Amino acid sequence: MLDRIAEAVKTSENIAVLPHITADGDALGSSFALALALAGIGKKADVLLEEKVPLIYCFLPGMEFSSVYEEETGPKMRRARHYDLVIALDCGDIERLGTRRKVFDAAEKTVNIDHHQTNTGFAALNLTDTGASATGEIIFELIGHLGQKIGRDAATSLYAAIATDTGGFRYSNTTPHTHEIAAELIRLGVDVADISQRVFDITSYGKVKLMGAAIRNLELLEDGKLAVMAVTNEMIRSSEAREEDSDGIINVARNIRGVEAAAMLRQLDSGEIKVNLRSNNYVDVAAIAARHSGGGHKRAAGFTTAGVLEQVKEAVINELKEAL
Amino acid sequence: MLDRIAEAVKTSENIAVLPHITADGDALGSSFALALALAGIGKKADVLLEEKVPLIYCFLPGMEFSSVYEEETGPKMRRARHYDLVIALDCGDIERLGTRRKVFDAAEKTVNIDHHQTNTGFAALNLTDTGASATGEIIFELIGHLGQKIGRDAATSLYAAIATDTGGFRYSNTTPHTHEIAAELIRLGVDVADISQRVFDITSYGKVKLMGAAIRNLELLEDGKLAVMAVTNEMIRSSEAREEDSDGIINVARNIRGVEAAAMLRQLDSGEIKVNLRSNNYVDVAAIAARHSGGGHKRAAGFTTAGVLEQVKEAVINELKEAL
Repeated sequence: MLDRIAEAVKTSENIAVLPHITADGDALGSSFALALALAGIGKKADVLLEEKVPLIYCFLPGMEFSSVYEEETGPKMRRARHYDLVIALDCGDIERLGTRRKVFDAAEKTVNIDHHQTNTGFAALNLTDTGASATGEIIFELIGHLGQKIGRDAATSLYAAIATDTGGFRYSNTTPHTHEIAAELIRLGVDVADISQRVFDITSYGKVKLMGAAIRNLELLEDGKLAVMAVTNEMIRSSEAREEDSDGIINVARNIRGVEAAAMLRQLDSGEIKVNLRSNNYVDVAAIAARHSGGGHKRAAGFTTAGVLEQVKEAVINELKEAL
Repeated sequence: MLDRIAEAVKTSENIAVLPHITADGDALGSSFALALALAGIGKKADVLLEEKVPLIYCFLPGMEFSSVYEEETGPKMRRARHYDLVIALDCGDIERLGTRRKVFDAAEKTVNIDHHQTNTGFAALNLTDTGASATGEIIFELIGHLGQKIGRDAATSLYAAIATDTGGFRYSNTTPHTHEIAAELIRLGVDVADISQRVFDITSYGKVKLMGAAIRNLELLEDGKLAVMAVTNEMIRSSEAREEDSDGIINVARNIRGVEAAAMLRQLDSGEIKVNLRSNNYVDVAAIAARHSGGGHKRAAGFTTAGVLEQVKEAVINELKEAL
C-alpha cells in the first residue's frame, strides 16, 4: 500500500494534508514532516488545519506549510480550492476532518493514513498500521518510499510526532521499531533535549498555579486507595489558567503511591459537573461512568452531570468506595 | 577492554558488584542486571550497597542479590569477606564506594566500569565509555561478551538503568545507540508502561502536597523571566513529606514558559538556607553560586548560606535580576 500511495503522490501536483480536528503532536508533526518531504520533491503541499496550531507545537518545522481552513459559505462562496490529492492523517473516521471534509470530497484522489484500530477506511487508498505507535512512524516509512532523504527539519517533526503519541516512549504502544526509528531520527540531527523540553516540560504559569490549587484540595480516602480533587471556576480564575489547563491534573492523583482509583470534578460554566475517573489496576471506572451516561475505558472514563459540586463529589466517592 | 573484563569474570568465582553511594536507577539497575548474568554463568555474585534500595527501585529484578554492606569494626572485627573480583559500577572515583572501599582494596582483581568523563581509573581494569548514556549500556555489551543471553529480568533492570539516566530518553546524552539498545531490551520482554509508571510517575502523597505548598508561594518576577519558590520546615511537616521530597521541585519553576532563571530556597534544620539555582539559556548561575562558596554548572548550581529566609531570598532575587 505504501507503494500505491507513493505512486499517487508522484502523479499529483497539488496536495492537501489533513490532520484530525484538535490536532495533537502526532497529527501535526506527521503532517508537517510530510509537507516538507512533498515540497522536497517539487509538489505544492498545503497542510489544512481546523484550528490554530497550539503554542507548544509552534516550533515544529514545516508549520510554514499550514493554514487554518476557512469554509467559504453564503454569497461569497467560491469553489473550494482544488487538490489532485488529499491525504487524511491520523483520522480514525471521516468525521475527524470537521469542516475540511469538503476539501476531501472535492479531491480527485484520496488517501487515509492512520494507526487507530477503529479506522473506517474512508478513502480510496487506506493504510492503517495498528502496530505503529504513531502516524509519524508510517510517515517515516512513506517518505522513504517517495525516494526522499529525511532532512533535519522533517526528522524533528517526526520525532515530536512519535514522542508525543508514546508519552515519551513510555506508553505500552512503544515498540522496538519505535526506538529504531527514534535512533535513525537522532542520526538525522534531531536535538532530543530541546524538543523534549518544549513538548514535555514547559508549561504555563496558569497551569502550574491551577495544579497547586487542585493539590490543595486533594483528598486521600480509604487508606490511601482513593484520591479525589476538584477544579472550580474560581480556581481557574484566580490561577489565571485556561479551561484546558485542567487537562491531565487528574494524573497527579492517580500517580500517588497506593492509589487505585482517582476522581477529578470540574465545575463547568453551565453549572454542570464534569467528572473524570481513573484507575490503576482493577477498578472498572467505565462501568461507573456508564451509569451516568458517560463513557471511556476500564482505567479512564468520565461523565457530566447536573448537581452541586459537594454533592456530586460525595456520590462519586461512594460509588468508587463500592468498587474498591 | 570488554574482553579482558569478561576474562577476569570467567576466571573468578566470588564476585562483588559495587554501585556508587546513594545509588540511583542506573547504578542499581546495572548492578542487578550484572548480578543476574553472573549467576547465570554459575558465579557467586553479591551486590553490596552502602544504603537500602530506595522504594521506587525495589521492583527491579536482581535486587535479591543485594545487601547493605556493614563495616565490621571494633572487637568483633573479622576479615572482610574475600572476593576474587570486585566490579565498581558507575563510580567516577574510589570515594564513591564509601565504606565498601575496604572490600575493593581486599579483592584480588578489581574492575571499574563507568560512563563519567571525570573517571579516575582507580581499578586494575578500567572501562570508561563517556559516549554511553548510562552504565547500563556498557553492562548490556558486557553481558554479551560473557556469552550470556539477556533474560527478561536482566533486560528490565537494564532498561530501568538507561531510562532513568536519560530522563526517559529526553536528555542530551541520549544517542541513537541508546535507542537501539532500548529496542533490543523491549524485544527481550521489558514491560515499558509498567516500568515507566513505577520509575517516572508514581510519587508519594507527601511529595505531592509539598509541591502544592511550594507552588502556593511561587513568585514570578521581572516580566516572568525569574521564578522563585521556597520550602520551609513547616511546609515539610504539614505536608508529611520527607527531606528528599523537595528534590526536583525547582523544575516546576524552571519549566514555566518564559522563565530564564529559577531559584528555590530551602530552610534547613540547622537554620541555614540552601539555595538551588537553575537557568534555561543564558544566565550563568554557577557564577552566582561561586560568590557564595557554592558550586555547580552554568545552568544548575547551588550554595548554602546563613541568614533569614526572607533576607536571603531578597538577596538572591537581586543577584539574579542583575544577571538577567
